[in-house]
Amino acid sequence: MSVTAPAGFRAAGVVAGLKPSGRPDVAVVVNDGPLDTAAGVFTRNRVQAAPVQWSRQVLADGRLRAVVLNSGGANACTGPAGFADTHRCAEHTAALLGIGAGELAVCSTGLIGVRLPMELLLAGVDKAVAEASVTGAGAAAEAICTTDTVSKQAVCAAEGVTVGGMAKGAAMLAPTLATMLVVVTTDAVVDPPTADRLLRDACRTTFERVDSDGCMSTNDTVLLLASGASGVSVAAETLGGLVTDTCADLAGQLVADAEGSTKTIAITVTGAAGEQDALEVGRAVARCNLLKCALYGNDPNWGRVLAAVGTTRAAFEPDALDVAINGVWVCRGGAPGEPRELVDLAGREVSIRIDLHAGATELTVWTNDLTDGYVYENSAYST
Amino acid sequence: MSVTAPAGFRAAGVVAGLKPSGRPDVAVVVNDGPLDTAAGVFTRNRVQAAPVQWSRQVLADGRLRAVVLNSGGANACTGPAGFADTHRCAEHTAALLGIGAGELAVCSTGLIGVRLPMELLLAGVDKAVAEASVTGAGAAAEAICTTDTVSKQAVCAAEGVTVGGMAKGAAMLAPTLATMLVVVTTDAVVDPPTADRLLRDACRTTFERVDSDGCMSTNDTVLLLASGASGVSVAAETLGGLVTDTCADLAGQLVADAEGSTKTIAITVTGAAGEQDALEVGRAVARCNLLKCALYGNDPNWGRVLAAVGTTRAAFEPDALDVAINGVWVCRGGAPGEPRELVDLAGREVSIRIDLHAGATELTVWTNDLTDGYVYENSAYST
Repeated sequence: MSVTAPAGFRAAGVVAGLKPSGRPDVAVVVNDGPLDTAAGVFTRNRVQAAPVQWSRQVLADGRLRAVVLNSGGANACTGPAGFADTHRCAEHTAALLGIGAGELAVCSTGLIGVRLPMELLLAGVDKAVAEASVTGAGAAAEAICTTDTVSKQAVCAAEGVTVGGMAKGAAMLAPTLATMLVVVTTDAVVDPPTADRLLRDACRTTFERVDSDGCMSTNDTVLLLASGASGVSVAAETLGGLVTDTCADLAGQLVADAEGSTKTIAITVTGAAGEQDALEVGRAVARCNLLKCALYGNDPNWGRVLAAVGTTRAAFEPDALDVAINGVWVCRGGAPGEPRELVDLAGREVSIRIDLHAGATELTVWTNDLTDGYVYENSAYST
Repeated sequence: MSVTAPAGFRAAGVVAGLKPSGRPDVAVVVNDGPLDTAAGVFTRNRVQAAPVQWSRQVLADGRLRAVVLNSGGANACTGPAGFADTHRCAEHTAALLGIGAGELAVCSTGLIGVRLPMELLLAGVDKAVAEASVTGAGAAAEAICTTDTVSKQAVCAAEGVTVGGMAKGAAMLAPTLATMLVVVTTDAVVDPPTADRLLRDACRTTFERVDSDGCMSTNDTVLLLASGASGVSVAAETLGGLVTDTCADLAGQLVADAEGSTKTIAITVTGAAGEQDALEVGRAVARCNLLKCALYGNDPNWGRVLAAVGTTRAAFEPDALDVAINGVWVCRGGAPGEPRELVDLAGREVSIRIDLHAGATELTVWTNDLTDGYVYENSAYST
């Protein structure tokens, strides 16, 4: 169900022929109201795809009636002609739905630097709008996939309101492995400023703590649409909790399906002086190619963890650092601790715990191992 | 010849048995004077190996009589016991040479977090000191190799002075793929403050512009030793030019032999507002795993170049960016330019040219592709 689990939403996913594989590639999510509250969080990359530029603009008033999404082409680095393509797609979709183009967000994912085949895309939109229904969430989630091996969907509910979500990609808002697109829906009654705050808070502690390969997409988009169709208004913290839980669920699915990965690595930084320090350390470790290769080879190479921590400005003393891998404290006081042979790295889940002994803050950043599968997928992506 | 090409130097490389492979693993470089001028540049990693801590201290007065180096163990993250090992190695070597331990630098490379087998190391030092000669440079360069497939040596000379150098590793002072150790020697007459300035300048535009995999070692060390044995004092610019040329030669050899690489990638940033901007852009592109995988697959994926540029704070307008790959301007004004099919990526050398159109600064950063060979070497390194 995902995005159509909350009352007031229809969705569809269809084959438009944008992907050479012939798999579904165009989706719509329609909010039938009564409310049209919406919020969005976008990539921080300064090179932004045409659909990101468009969706930012139309979201300025905190209102959306629908989203049209396509895989098979990112429409990024396509210049003014690419922006005109996004505009045309929005106008076309809005006309079919009887709404204004300014009430509709556009999301695209796929190759950068290539124009979209507009006739195929618009014909696909015709089909998707015609098919949009309360049972279309699964098809929509399928249609936004690129290198994803499974579609990502989640639903949370409490106190009479429901939150649903779908996602594609395998990473995050700032750095990302492939473009991350996320649509979260709810039937709660909520105003635009609150929706904006709740979505930003949810992203900060979920998608923004996944860093699969340190790369930042030109197209990352997370949208929240609220229909108000439940007629129920819950406390902001309650709705925020549901939105965060939905995003956390989807973020977990993204990292579990990252390109070529064989490990899901949870890097927990503890004893940090503050959130900024903890995040900087977590990300530095998450981006260490040498460590990610070692973990792929089931090698608990904690020296590479310390070398990555040492590149940060966080508060810590090198000879006070402790590191545990899968529960074994292999490094104590910056020197060897328990025997590394005790570490069992056979499974997919890897936990790395780094104690900075510099404060009371703890948080977790998620990443993946670096594998020949990743190299293969990303060297063959466009050829 | 390399480090023994300048007059006043002896060197040796021997098998001490630190490496399971039985390849040479201990080297010495001895400066017989008359001068003992020296300078050093070290890793900026806050987690620093014992030999780095030692060598920093003994170099405070700008004087060195010798360097002892070992592969087969980095002596990093080994705590106070590891520092005592370095101290003991320095005392032992100095006694053999009839100098003070404070006149001797120590360099180590290999696995992090493991103590050195001291009896083997000290017996190796005995052998190396006994064998040190003016023909020992090649053996010394061999003995510091780890995953290097060839040893790295260079010689430059002008106006009666000679500069020689050896290096191991495949990267740089800040980020590095594996530890980089470099010893540069000269018979020029030069004082410590000048030597320090010339070495720092040389590193800034050579080793510090190589970024093979974005990782920063705990052990990186570049040493310059001047014997004054030529009796010749040349202008500082002349000597600086020779030192820089020697470092540039060695840096080129490092990037040509980077772990698992099939491409040497020169990223030239032009039209930058300043050196800081140009460096930030060059490094961001050099660290983009997605781009490095694409180039491994002979895919001129310029969109990934733009996506990396977009993560920086450099001055530029996204719709003014031009990108050429191997001479073909595949991106003009942030949008598609010449057909990507024109780009020939068959050879090892790849040139990426990025014009920011924001100023007059140009510089080049060097990196490698990301390959399954890199993944293999770094997942199997310690296991």
